[in-house]
Amino acid sequence: MHMMDTPLLLTGFFKRAERYFGHKKIYSRTGPETMHEFTYKEYAERTRRLASSLTKLGMTRGTKIATFCWNDHRHLEMYFAVPCSEAILHTVNIRLSPEHIVYVINHAEDDVLIVDHTLLKLIEAVAPLLKTVKTFIVCGDAVDVSATTLPNVYSYEDLIQSGDPTHVFAEDFDENTPAGMCYTSATTGMPKGVVYTHRSIVLHSFAMMFKDSVALSEHDIMLPIVPMFHVNAWGMPFVCVNLGATQVLPGPLFTPELLLDLCEQYGVTISAGVPTIWLGFLQEQKKKPRDLSSLRLIVSGGSASPISMAKAFEEMGITFYTGYGMTETSPLVSVSIYTSQTEQYDYEERMDIRTTQGLTVPLVEARIVNENGDVPWDDETMGELIVKGPWIAAEYYRDERTNDAFKDGWLYTGDIAVYTKDGNIRITDRTKDLIKSGGEWISSIELENALMSYEKVAEAAVIAVPHPKWLERPVACVVVKEEFKDTVTKEELLDHLRQDFARLWIPDDVVFLEEIPKTSVGKFLKQQLREDLKDYQLPE
Amino acid sequence: MHMMDTPLLLTGFFKRAERYFGHKKIYSRTGPETMHEFTYKEYAERTRRLASSLTKLGMTRGTKIATFCWNDHRHLEMYFAVPCSEAILHTVNIRLSPEHIVYVINHAEDDVLIVDHTLLKLIEAVAPLLKTVKTFIVCGDAVDVSATTLPNVYSYEDLIQSGDPTHVFAEDFDENTPAGMCYTSATTGMPKGVVYTHRSIVLHSFAMMFKDSVALSEHDIMLPIVPMFHVNAWGMPFVCVNLGATQVLPGPLFTPELLLDLCEQYGVTISAGVPTIWLGFLQEQKKKPRDLSSLRLIVSGGSASPISMAKAFEEMGITFYTGYGMTETSPLVSVSIYTSQTEQYDYEERMDIRTTQGLTVPLVEARIVNENGDVPWDDETMGELIVKGPWIAAEYYRDERTNDAFKDGWLYTGDIAVYTKDGNIRITDRTKDLIKSGGEWISSIELENALMSYEKVAEAAVIAVPHPKWLERPVACVVVKEEFKDTVTKEELLDHLRQDFARLWIPDDVVFLEEIPKTSVGKFLKQQLREDLKDYQLPE
Repeated sequence: MHMMDTPLLLTGFFKRAERYFGHKKIYSRTGPETMHEFTYKEYAERTRRLASSLTKLGMTRGTKIATFCWNDHRHLEMYFAVPCSEAILHTVNIRLSPEHIVYVINHAEDDVLIVDHTLLKLIEAVAPLLKTVKTFIVCGDAVDVSATTLPNVYSYEDLIQSGDPTHVFAEDFDENTPAGMCYTSATTGMPKGVVYTHRSIVLHSFAMMFKDSVALSEHDIMLPIVPMFHVNAWGMPFVCVNLGATQVLPGPLFTPELLLDLCEQYGVTISAGVPTIWLGFLQEQKKKPRDLSSLRLIVSGGSASPISMAKAFEEMGITFYTGYGMTETSPLVSVSIYTSQTEQYDYEERMDIRTTQGLTVPLVEARIVNENGDVPWDDETMGELIVKGPWIAAEYYRDERTNDAFKDGWLYTGDIAVYTKDGNIRITDRTKDLIKSGGEWISSIELENALMSYEKVAEAAVIAVPHPKWLERPVACVVVKEEFKDTVTKEELLDHLRQDFARLWIPDDVVFLEEIPKTSVGKFLKQQLREDLKDYQLPE
Repeated sequence: MHMMDTPLLLTGFFKRAERYFGHKKIYSRTGPETMHEFTYKEYAERTRRLASSLTKLGMTRGTKIATFCWNDHRHLEMYFAVPCSEAILHTVNIRLSPEHIVYVINHAEDDVLIVDHTLLKLIEAVAPLLKTVKTFIVCGDAVDVSATTLPNVYSYEDLIQSGDPTHVFAEDFDENTPAGMCYTSATTGMPKGVVYTHRSIVLHSFAMMFKDSVALSEHDIMLPIVPMFHVNAWGMPFVCVNLGATQVLPGPLFTPELLLDLCEQYGVTISAGVPTIWLGFLQEQKKKPRDLSSLRLIVSGGSASPISMAKAFEEMGITFYTGYGMTETSPLVSVSIYTSQTEQYDYEERMDIRTTQGLTVPLVEARIVNENGDVPWDDETMGELIVKGPWIAAEYYRDERTNDAFKDGWLYTGDIAVYTKDGNIRITDRTKDLIKSGGEWISSIELENALMSYEKVAEAAVIAVPHPKWLERPVACVVVKEEFKDTVTKEELLDHLRQDFARLWIPDDVVFLEEIPKTSVGKFLKQQLREDLKDYQLPE
């Protein structure tokens, strides 16, 4: 061994914060009116106490500990206490259906379940169906565990109290040791599990610390709006601890008003979340402007951001990045930074770049491929985005569906994209929503965006309908804004599209609906829409 | 395997520049009046050609290729052509004595030696003594290999010409594969070899891309003044290629005037080198000011920087970092960034921090230890700095001296340091130069800095002299500035020291010299000084 065999472990992140940034602060909103505030020194001590108590309860290498919690300081304690003990943190999505909650906990074979007291009822209802959980832990400020129906139950704060603040973590285990798990919803069937390792989390964290990426710093004050049960809140809690960055954890059920108040009050410099959050954020800021002068960067991801959103932040002097990734990719694959070339572009072009999925970060390799191989950088030729890299999953956990997505060492993302002329990734569709018409690929998302930019349209979804000659043809499903009801014609909408799209792309028909069916997180449920329209006949 | 088993390889760096930054530029000064300019696309093509030709000449996994070259584009081509072929690049220090040059090449068992035409005579002189080199390659713009006495010799440019521009690199080899070698001078005996691996270089590069570090970016225009035969020019060529940053390579034998001209002409944003370089740089800028408005950062390392240097750059609006490291550490161990706390300090305190060796970068662990264990953060208690991490060597290459420096998984740096109250490392001495007097440790460097801040003193070195009661006592060796010759008294100098140091620290004597003996790179040769003074008697 020429160089030291130092494994890439989360214990190193934890020790760094403890050693150098003990004075730094973590703020954690534990309820509508309560803000818990403590230092990294106190955080580290509580985390060691927690690890010690969990170890006494039987946690050892490979033990799976499920969490059912919000973005708060206790969840952050679990984020390190568990993996630093060589155990595995399974963050369960609290928004899953009871059936899926039971499935993921049983499938992961979780041994312990830590649940926030505000979510206790959801777990009590399914507890009898959980086959492997032997121990329950309830967290909250003043929890009375005698009041719950859960068996073998402990109070989180009691465990902290009885824990050893000098508990020592091992530092010499294999960097490929599993550290965390997260399940992602599937189009059909049960959620699919992804297992993150110490190595994958450490390297992914670095990708967020690069200057040519999110450039997270100790100087940052981070408000993570992505839930900590969703792809590790995009990995931000790990990075923040490594850096000793100030964290402002928003806790349960927040509103745009609250987020803005937190930004102003704590001088937040960076925040990350889905576009819906930023829409509400911008509306609220317009209604009642806060001092956001400390805010340097917004990272938006999870679905497409409209250019108007990028412009609104830009005009406030706040950089707006679109990031791309998924549960399988830890998630960071690419981010819409400017290069020394694209920063010279004019305003409209720059704002357009901010809404692309951006440039691949170092160590991740991405290709966009169709039946002719790699697509050219022409902003036009579509293909499926495939990726590989050290923080990209190699499989779904004990799941036959692995073979559908992982082939020849690449993850097939199921996203259809083009490369812009500068090498930025621009997602144009999901593979399953793409319309394939007479050899041409038609992007449903581009048509939808164009329809929704028309002032009379509230929502629009474009789907493929079978066609005898062209195989598939696009049909637009449109919800008209209340004030324009019954005043919009099909031709008017199609004319609007004809300004920007080739003839082949223009939908064969427009169907007016009262509502577009949606998933629990507000994405269009096109599968449902296709089902609803299965008896629909194209006009002659 | 839960996550993809993607090795950390330099081939990934190379492909990234080629794929995304083909349009970016590399400038390479190949002679006093010649500036070669090409794009990363051309760079990548020439690098593939070189690899193909070297492969035809027999280069394969593990082949050792020595270089004897300046900071220019050809050396940069070798930097990737060789390790991306799983071979090992041994960058030989052109300033070594002929005896040491022969030793390192024979000890490494280099198969091929690539030499710049301007350095040909040095190699011709020792060629008969090289036991393993089978092939010589001479580089330069118009090289006539028939004129050299070297056997089995090729012209570098001929090899480029005959090489295959589509040559393919493997991408699936072990990340612990050796990529490079560098020998470091030893206090006694022959130089000691360090072997860098793909993993160590990739991770070290990341440490230079973090926002809370050097924050290298694609937007940067880098002028590396550290030689590419010295710890891989501190790793900068690797980082720059990964990022697609513009490089301005200064070539052979440059002057302060030239460096300033390059900064102005190419809009250099960052440069790195030793303090002597910056001293000349500042003097020249005073004499003939250039437009340095593009320059954002100077990184200084290798020896201590005076606070006046930090202030001079700061006053020009240029951030000044002191970095710490050595050949054994790739080199980056720590860098004098501000934290959110220290950036609030007043000017003098901030400038002081800039001249400390700074905060340890992520993944490197550092301790300062003496016989009582870890020293407190009191800016006072001295101990030896020991480090570990994934880019710290685990051994000297085939060398018994490994056991002197590598113990219990730590590298003992041989540097004596304190921790400031904020956790910054401040080097106070070399272990071998430290003065141990009656149980107290006295820093020779602190006394020297104080003496050299006295206006009449040109140079000062403080060494230990044996003492019957105190074991050792400090003696100051002083060179007086020409204009103050014969007007300075010992008492005057000791009085100057008494203002700042405790009685025990005040040297027992001052010896006036014409010159302090120095190493080839201008460091005080205290070993020689101790030898010269071996018959010296302390005053009663």
